[in-house]
Amino acid sequence: MLRTHTCGELRIQDVNKRVALTGWVQRLRDKGSLLWIDLRDRYGITQLFLEEGKSDPAMLQSARQLGREYVVRVTGTVAERLSKNDKIPTGAIEIKLESIEVLNKSKTPPFTIEDNTDGGDDLRMKYRYLDLRRSPVREGLQLRHKMAQQTRAYLDSLNFIEVETPVLIKSTPEGARDFVVPSRIHHGEFYALPQSPQTFKQLLMVSGFDRYYQIVKCFRDEDLRADRQPEFTQIDCEMAFITQEDILATFEGLVRHLFKTVKGIDMPSVPHMTYADAMKYYGSDKPDTRFEMKFCELTDIVKGKGFQAFDQASMAVGFCARGCATYTRKQLDELTEFVKRPQIGAKGMVYLRYEENGTLKSSVDKFYPPDELRKWVTACNAQPGDLILVLSGETDKTRKALGELRLYVASQLGLRDKNTFSALWVIDFPLLEWNEETSRYHAMHHPFTSPKREDLQLLDTAPGEIRANAYDMVINGTEVGGGSIRIHDRPTQQLMFNHLGFTEEEAKKQFGFLMEAFEFGAPPHGGIAFGFDRLCSLFGGADSIRDFIAFPKNNAGRDTMIDTPAAISQEQLNELGLDIQPEK
Amino acid sequence: MLRTHTCGELRIQDVNKRVALTGWVQRLRDKGSLLWIDLRDRYGITQLFLEEGKSDPAMLQSARQLGREYVVRVTGTVAERLSKNDKIPTGAIEIKLESIEVLNKSKTPPFTIEDNTDGGDDLRMKYRYLDLRRSPVREGLQLRHKMAQQTRAYLDSLNFIEVETPVLIKSTPEGARDFVVPSRIHHGEFYALPQSPQTFKQLLMVSGFDRYYQIVKCFRDEDLRADRQPEFTQIDCEMAFITQEDILATFEGLVRHLFKTVKGIDMPSVPHMTYADAMKYYGSDKPDTRFEMKFCELTDIVKGKGFQAFDQASMAVGFCARGCATYTRKQLDELTEFVKRPQIGAKGMVYLRYEENGTLKSSVDKFYPPDELRKWVTACNAQPGDLILVLSGETDKTRKALGELRLYVASQLGLRDKNTFSALWVIDFPLLEWNEETSRYHAMHHPFTSPKREDLQLLDTAPGEIRANAYDMVINGTEVGGGSIRIHDRPTQQLMFNHLGFTEEEAKKQFGFLMEAFEFGAPPHGGIAFGFDRLCSLFGGADSIRDFIAFPKNNAGRDTMIDTPAAISQEQLNELGLDIQPEK
Repeated sequence: MLRTHTCGELRIQDVNKRVALTGWVQRLRDKGSLLWIDLRDRYGITQLFLEEGKSDPAMLQSARQLGREYVVRVTGTVAERLSKNDKIPTGAIEIKLESIEVLNKSKTPPFTIEDNTDGGDDLRMKYRYLDLRRSPVREGLQLRHKMAQQTRAYLDSLNFIEVETPVLIKSTPEGARDFVVPSRIHHGEFYALPQSPQTFKQLLMVSGFDRYYQIVKCFRDEDLRADRQPEFTQIDCEMAFITQEDILATFEGLVRHLFKTVKGIDMPSVPHMTYADAMKYYGSDKPDTRFEMKFCELTDIVKGKGFQAFDQASMAVGFCARGCATYTRKQLDELTEFVKRPQIGAKGMVYLRYEENGTLKSSVDKFYPPDELRKWVTACNAQPGDLILVLSGETDKTRKALGELRLYVASQLGLRDKNTFSALWVIDFPLLEWNEETSRYHAMHHPFTSPKREDLQLLDTAPGEIRANAYDMVINGTEVGGGSIRIHDRPTQQLMFNHLGFTEEEAKKQFGFLMEAFEFGAPPHGGIAFGFDRLCSLFGGADSIRDFIAFPKNNAGRDTMIDTPAAISQEQLNELGLDIQPEK
Repeated sequence: MLRTHTCGELRIQDVNKRVALTGWVQRLRDKGSLLWIDLRDRYGITQLFLEEGKSDPAMLQSARQLGREYVVRVTGTVAERLSKNDKIPTGAIEIKLESIEVLNKSKTPPFTIEDNTDGGDDLRMKYRYLDLRRSPVREGLQLRHKMAQQTRAYLDSLNFIEVETPVLIKSTPEGARDFVVPSRIHHGEFYALPQSPQTFKQLLMVSGFDRYYQIVKCFRDEDLRADRQPEFTQIDCEMAFITQEDILATFEGLVRHLFKTVKGIDMPSVPHMTYADAMKYYGSDKPDTRFEMKFCELTDIVKGKGFQAFDQASMAVGFCARGCATYTRKQLDELTEFVKRPQIGAKGMVYLRYEENGTLKSSVDKFYPPDELRKWVTACNAQPGDLILVLSGETDKTRKALGELRLYVASQLGLRDKNTFSALWVIDFPLLEWNEETSRYHAMHHPFTSPKREDLQLLDTAPGEIRANAYDMVINGTEVGGGSIRIHDRPTQQLMFNHLGFTEEEAKKQFGFLMEAFEFGAPPHGGIAFGFDRLCSLFGGADSIRDFIAFPKNNAGRDTMIDTPAAISQEQLNELGLDIQPEK
């Protein structure tokens, strides 16, 4: 090694040691007779020191010519600092330099390599290799490494085996769009990149590998939107000979292990909530449970009093914002505007202030005398000083809109602290969901999810009401993982394919191998997949997954650093037997 | 869990425990009043026992209807066996059954699920999920998991950080052919799948992540041949601020750690051999050093004695096969035939028997009297009882042919035992190699490999003689890993691209980002990549990598189980803006 120590390593007890360090020049302070250099590497920063009259003049001169981000190797002796810096672990010492060797020069970087950089997103992405030198980005990737290590440690300890599944697989039209890979050898044929290793992990269960995991790249050719990547990483898991409770317990264990080992947080046991309750009480299948604000349904109480909006609604529902009776007219108007945005879609908002002095003040006073309003207070378990916010309309839409309002108000109240974590299992998801576009039911999770036996009778009469053995892990209002108990017999799988609109031929062509596998002794099995990028950003307290991915694509699916996607040569196209269609 | 124990877990001290097991019916032995079932899972086999008159008659009847590979859950009590089986860890006990529940039936598998199956390769690949139930295949994947675990344990302990590099990258014409991925959003443009994360790991060094690794899928669209997979896995590593010796020491450490922890073998320190010596003494850049048989050059000794084949040759070289003087005429003829095969390419073979009684017998007696032959004996350090085999001709071809003969004879002599391991560093590879087809020099390793400074002067006069800072790890005659110290400054990289026939524009278009990165403080760095599939098969004592990959492709690049590659829909093609060319 060109160094004896890293730049994060030396302490007061190392004083008088002769050392060699390597790293990048972070900054240089030239006070005339005294010169300090901050030398940076992945491990930290160490201060280097030169003194006019004591240090070699040639070395002093070359030190003065160092620019930011020059790579150097220095030798010297560890000395105690006169004025210590207790903000960095090496702050008690500095190196009295004996030699400086420039290993490589650097042009002036296009943005500053500091925690808060002056570089915009586009510039940072183009020079990602410089962006990665910044502590917040480096720490994001170090966190990710630790998350992966601890995930493996936990699963290994439970006899899970990591198996690599293939990347060149087969395109299936169900679900999102596949990326495809033309085969040169087989003219006109294509591989596809996996959206998940779903069928392979199920086959591994059929093979008897009863506990599988993989930290694995997956691919989706979706229309891009902010913070979605065409390639992403999953913690993909499957178990055989289990019940749903076994899966929930095992992977609650994983999440608690990660919180404990990576964040030092003792996460309490994770409560279970049905999908139905999540929608009823939070208007969302991924409720943020860092705070309460549960919904209270007021439909029966508020109807028939002459207030049209409520009378015509199938649902009136509210929640109680603690201590918010002091909200001004302006604040309340702003909330009303929020819910009326097209993406929220409410027609208006009703409020009820329960003043500290016990009086009730509502936007619909003229329809509801205090006696009536008192019923709202009771239903919402409001206390003096609270504010009740109510929306009404069609049930599902109203719940969703109120769910958005709940999050909005909670953000205003500072209840969504990034260093507080609240996890939740949402269970009993619907098996099917109606798709307006295709006018048919689609699998809500995927077509391999098993229905609850007792609900199967609804298949012809009320398919939307069938519950699945499906579950999501939600943390702070973000879905971090989801899975299901799978179908493991051919007749049920065939039945599902039929009801999802597959012809027998299509089902056989796409999933024939899986259905055939089910006939050779498939065990009961189920699993889960966690979105690893998202989980890392959650643990890192960040909104974007971008800084937890070393080389992300931008929102147009482009890597601007290496400039891809890009044209390929006509020779390559000919070898693949492909022509590019004229642009429309 | 549906079970209390696995099928590999119960021992004599568990007698009288009530247990529940799950697994597959391996076999059923029905002796009339007594019935045994072997129940198998990933962990082992446990014997189940039923007895006419004692066991429930309904259960007995259902037990008799069990077929091979049925999945069952049984309950019962652990009992000591009368006749123990000391070949399996559970051989001292059996389970007296109380209940049998069939979790799933099985059709008769298309081949037997036994260590030695009656299934041919094609059938096994089509039903890979059944093939994976067989112990040798399952153990191969378990070995692979352990290899990955221990690789991570070693590298983590040395502060390496695992960073995921992108899979959707950019096509570059250097090296093997890329698989490409059409972009739907960017009409006419393509991503490419990485042949290795080479440039990304170098950028990570520029970023300051001074120790990187990744166990990562790579892709090459090569013309297929036996035992080569279009997707394969590498242990990919890079270090900064190092010398070549640091890399060799670090990764010799990895290999020794793997031998110790996975195989229980104390591997001695790994010798270094130059490429020049490897060719001179073994006729190969990946010598099998499990045995000696070093070459002895006889050119000067044998020339000018009237034997034309030697007189016209630029090289006569042989080796001494210990104790092989007893080889019969027939055996020697067979060796001559071997070297005359077109793929070996020798014109003939000369032998010299050094009999136990001291007499010398050669196929070229009439040109070489005993006094002359004695010089051969001395040069080859032969002992009575040894056999010297000599080839002659053009230097490189003769060495290669003799290298093949050396391996062939060693195999005959049983010197290539799969449970003996001999590792070697081959260093100082040539930087460039002449390509007859393109009539120009190509990078032997890749264009980022640094030349030895002292050889750079040969760039214009004798480019083929420039040595690179490049090295391979060879075990038992197989190259398991290779790497180099990289170029880390723009001028040298530019120089290399020029000499490899890149125009300035091409170099900039393909690798401009890397050359630009070298201008922002790139540290000295180097690395290595190990072929993980091959390493696993070597540790597993197998010739083929196939059984160390869960779902391999066949020699035509096809997965016959899921039937891919396959046609995609016209709708998909239109979305991608692609037409398939008419077949030629």
